[in-house]
Amino acid sequence: MKLIRFGAAGTEKPGIIDQNGNYRDVSAFGQDFDEAFLGGTDLEDLRSWLGQNLDDCPVVPAETRLGPPVAEVSKIVCVGLNYAQHAKESGMDVPTAPVLFFKATTAICGPNDDIIIPKNSEKTDWEVELAIVIGKRASYVDEADAMSHVAGYVLHNDVSERAFQLEQSGQWVKGKSCDTFAPIGPFIGTTDEIPDPHNLRLWLKVNGETMQDSTTADLVFNIPYLVHYISQYMTLLPGDIISTGTPFGVGLGLDPQRYLKPGDIVELGIDGLGSSRQTARAWSPA
Amino acid sequence: MKLIRFGAAGTEKPGIIDQNGNYRDVSAFGQDFDEAFLGGTDLEDLRSWLGQNLDDCPVVPAETRLGPPVAEVSKIVCVGLNYAQHAKESGMDVPTAPVLFFKATTAICGPNDDIIIPKNSEKTDWEVELAIVIGKRASYVDEADAMSHVAGYVLHNDVSERAFQLEQSGQWVKGKSCDTFAPIGPFIGTTDEIPDPHNLRLWLKVNGETMQDSTTADLVFNIPYLVHYISQYMTLLPGDIISTGTPFGVGLGLDPQRYLKPGDIVELGIDGLGSSRQTARAWSPA
Repeated sequence: MKLIRFGAAGTEKPGIIDQNGNYRDVSAFGQDFDEAFLGGTDLEDLRSWLGQNLDDCPVVPAETRLGPPVAEVSKIVCVGLNYAQHAKESGMDVPTAPVLFFKATTAICGPNDDIIIPKNSEKTDWEVELAIVIGKRASYVDEADAMSHVAGYVLHNDVSERAFQLEQSGQWVKGKSCDTFAPIGPFIGTTDEIPDPHNLRLWLKVNGETMQDSTTADLVFNIPYLVHYISQYMTLLPGDIISTGTPFGVGLGLDPQRYLKPGDIVELGIDGLGSSRQTARAWSPA
Repeated sequence: MKLIRFGAAGTEKPGIIDQNGNYRDVSAFGQDFDEAFLGGTDLEDLRSWLGQNLDDCPVVPAETRLGPPVAEVSKIVCVGLNYAQHAKESGMDVPTAPVLFFKATTAICGPNDDIIIPKNSEKTDWEVELAIVIGKRASYVDEADAMSHVAGYVLHNDVSERAFQLEQSGQWVKGKSCDTFAPIGPFIGTTDEIPDPHNLRLWLKVNGETMQDSTTADLVFNIPYLVHYISQYMTLLPGDIISTGTPFGVGLGLDPQRYLKPGDIVELGIDGLGSSRQTARAWSPA
């Protein structure tokens, strides 16, 4: 299934994308795509329910805003430097164990919402990433059992302010957590949609120019290992997001470096997980 | 007011501590102490309501388990190295700007719950901290206005695994996010309870021996500055926690270093915010 959430920010409704590519409102199923939904049997129940009820689910106009396809995420765990060539362009070594950092969940926005360039930012950068959506709660999970804790996958732009991340005191979180720095979606592709998550092309363009074009086959640490590894340090809840790292081609790695300016259009996509499109704009007081 | 949440983990009810030190069940007010409660006028409404209804609020037995006094926290932002003498014992410089890191919200537990020493941990350490509970949503807040975004304060033991934090690849989050690594409480002291948060004694004992004994007068960056500063990098939601850093006296700084063993008793407290008590125990499969 392809799970979406649609409508105005903060009041999104659950939906799916049907075989014909139409958005369908599945509010009648009675469950938002949140921790309770993703952690139980509801995903399978929804599949069965759709078998009976899909024709009665209203088609949602294609121009409707998409929100983040998962609700009430407890945490976004990001994996740094998980493609060798990206580690090199960042001037860092390929890590011997996964580098982890968090993004604030307040950074989450819809896949096509504007990226707000923060006040005082000159180095807002892009990062296309394959993200995992956790299904079953995960604590001290064996690598062999890890995939049973994954509900699906989602496209993520791990927007990053490089000066905030790297040139100010301390930890990376400062450059990762600004509002709108986590556009996710268009949809969660459930695991049956993505038989091999380790062989997906992922790409990102700025104003039509290809900046990133790689494959998840190049991940340093693969998905079952990451779920296993992270679950040694914290409990992953249903709906938690693990973003698996970005490949070569970020603005930080260019010579000269290049960062987003107001009006820039960022488009990104992953095989089987659709594409998203954000316009950068300057922060302004509400 | 002194706001508590009491009962079994996951099904806590809201309460207050009255003038006589009794726990009172305020479920009848109809609001848990969550984002909606802390972000609106409910705190003042509760105060008024208690003026009329306190006598009808059931007394809760003193031996009842306390849970974390805030529900559904979106993030815990911690400030590193915010006492000069602690930076020194950690072998680090006093920072020129606040060092920020996150703890997973899954680490939150009640003030007197056991601290679970994680699997493969040999360096589980203690950190008494004064934590801020955000009231009004905060984004790009001026320092002069920052205190109006604070709902209250709470005692926090920022439990930390030093090998996970400092000896493995990357960022500190790995050593800060294990389950039970954030005992908070006993209660939120609303701002009226704590007229001067910059002059509070804070202390921590292990098995009765004083390990930390300091004062928030020694904070490198004070509370309005921290709220202002953090709000430049992310939006703080009602109920978010800012933990302001720990003073001198952690196990990492001792010679030889000393860490928690199963059975160790950790007690900590802050003037006006009560005390908490945790027993360390080894992780075991559920």
